[in-house]
Amino acid sequence: MNIKDFQNEVDKWTAQFDSQYWKPHEILARLVEEVGELSREINHLYGPKRKKATEEKRRLSEEIADVIFTLICLANSKGIDLEDSLQKVIDKSYKRDNDRYRKK
Amino acid sequence: MNIKDFQNEVDKWTAQFDSQYWKPHEILARLVEEVGELSREINHLYGPKRKKATEEKRRLSEEIADVIFTLICLANSKGIDLEDSLQKVIDKSYKRDNDRYRKK
Amino acid sequence: MNIKDFQNEVDKWTAQFDSQYWKPHEILARLVEEVGELSREINHLYGPKRKKATEEKRRLSEEIADVIFTLICLANSKGIDLEDSLQKVIDKSYKRDNDRYRKK
Amino acid sequence: MNIKDFQNEVDKWTAQFDSQYWKPHEILARLVEEVGELSREINHLYGPKRKKATEEKRRLSEEIADVIFTLICLANSKGIDLEDSLQKVIDKSYKRDNDRYRKK
Repeated sequence: MNIKDFQNEVDKWTAQFDSQYWKPHEILARLVEEVGELSREINHLYGPKRKKATEEKRRLSEEIADVIFTLICLANSKGIDLEDSLQKVIDKSYKRDNDRYRKK
Repeated sequence: MNIKDFQNEVDKWTAQFDSQYWKPHEILARLVEEVGELSREINHLYGPKRKKATEEKRRLSEEIADVIFTLICLANSKGIDLEDSLQKVIDKSYKRDNDRYRKK
Repeated sequence: MNIKDFQNEVDKWTAQFDSQYWKPHEILARLVEEVGELSREINHLYGPKRKKATEEKRRLSEEIADVIFTLICLANSKGIDLEDSLQKVIDKSYKRDNDRYRKK
Repeated sequence: MNIKDFQNEVDKWTAQFDSQYWKPHEILARLVEEVGELSREINHLYGPKRKKATEEKRRLSEEIADVIFTLICLANSKGIDLEDSLQKVIDKSYKRDNDRYRKK
């Protein structure tokens, strides 16, 4: 499944609701809430509150996916094609940031 | 291009550096920096500091893609398959959150 | 009670624990978690998920105070005098940002 | 200077502008922008992008103060007394969180 398919899936799911997408500031607040949950998980898994890290990968992957889901909502609400955006950020990395870190 | 391809692209780009991926807390700090830039853009485009919104879509899409790029780094650093994670969050939406908002 | 007093209170409370302050990245992750909870509250009170806003002020003030508490931990961990820092940011506002917004 | 004095200072400064305080979601977006700048500084000072850390304390204290300034704006916009809020969070720490970490 490519990114466009995921954008379509999210669009189909949200289409059933009264107001399909919230306003940008409201989606941002949700995004920050989700990033907060990812932060808590990172402190649990790798920080001072470290718990027994069973299912580390599953828990981290869920929180990351929740953040991406919210970003897809924001992109969809403004008609943004994420595949195109991601391609551009990859290209930019090779051009602009290629000498930013110490190479092997 | 599907999500696995983007994960591979990021992996190929980062592979050239001395330390391929930072620690989770360090990637998180970068993520928060990128979310901060997205926030500034949202206030510029839709908030009190509203500027002339030329190229609204391009600017928003760049900031969103920078956030996703950082999330891909975090996922790659821990061997997480994002396609699988995103599929699960879509499934969860239909199950858990389906009655959360008012329907049409 | 002035800000120095609050910094001392936090210092006294944390002094009883095995490791008085976490590392900066770990305190940052906690800060982001607290900002995430403030975000959720703002969406509840003023956004699309609006609930009956009883005790609006109390709930908002609790979340704001939790964020400041974490910032005091960060400041204390590095021996920063917040009264001095805040005085400087007020001074900077009058100098640098004084023409930034439209005046009455 | 106590916290009430700082709240009054901010109130006096913002009073000169056309719209004294932004809406909660807009102040939140600014807050996230400031937390993003603090994050970047933390990665610079203690993370993988570590620079020569001259003036470490000054730079960190500036970013922390910018975040608190934004929180004071949010509190003021809703008539919240931060001294009272902070007193409550200190009290809560002694009651609720007192057994949360390992003691000396």
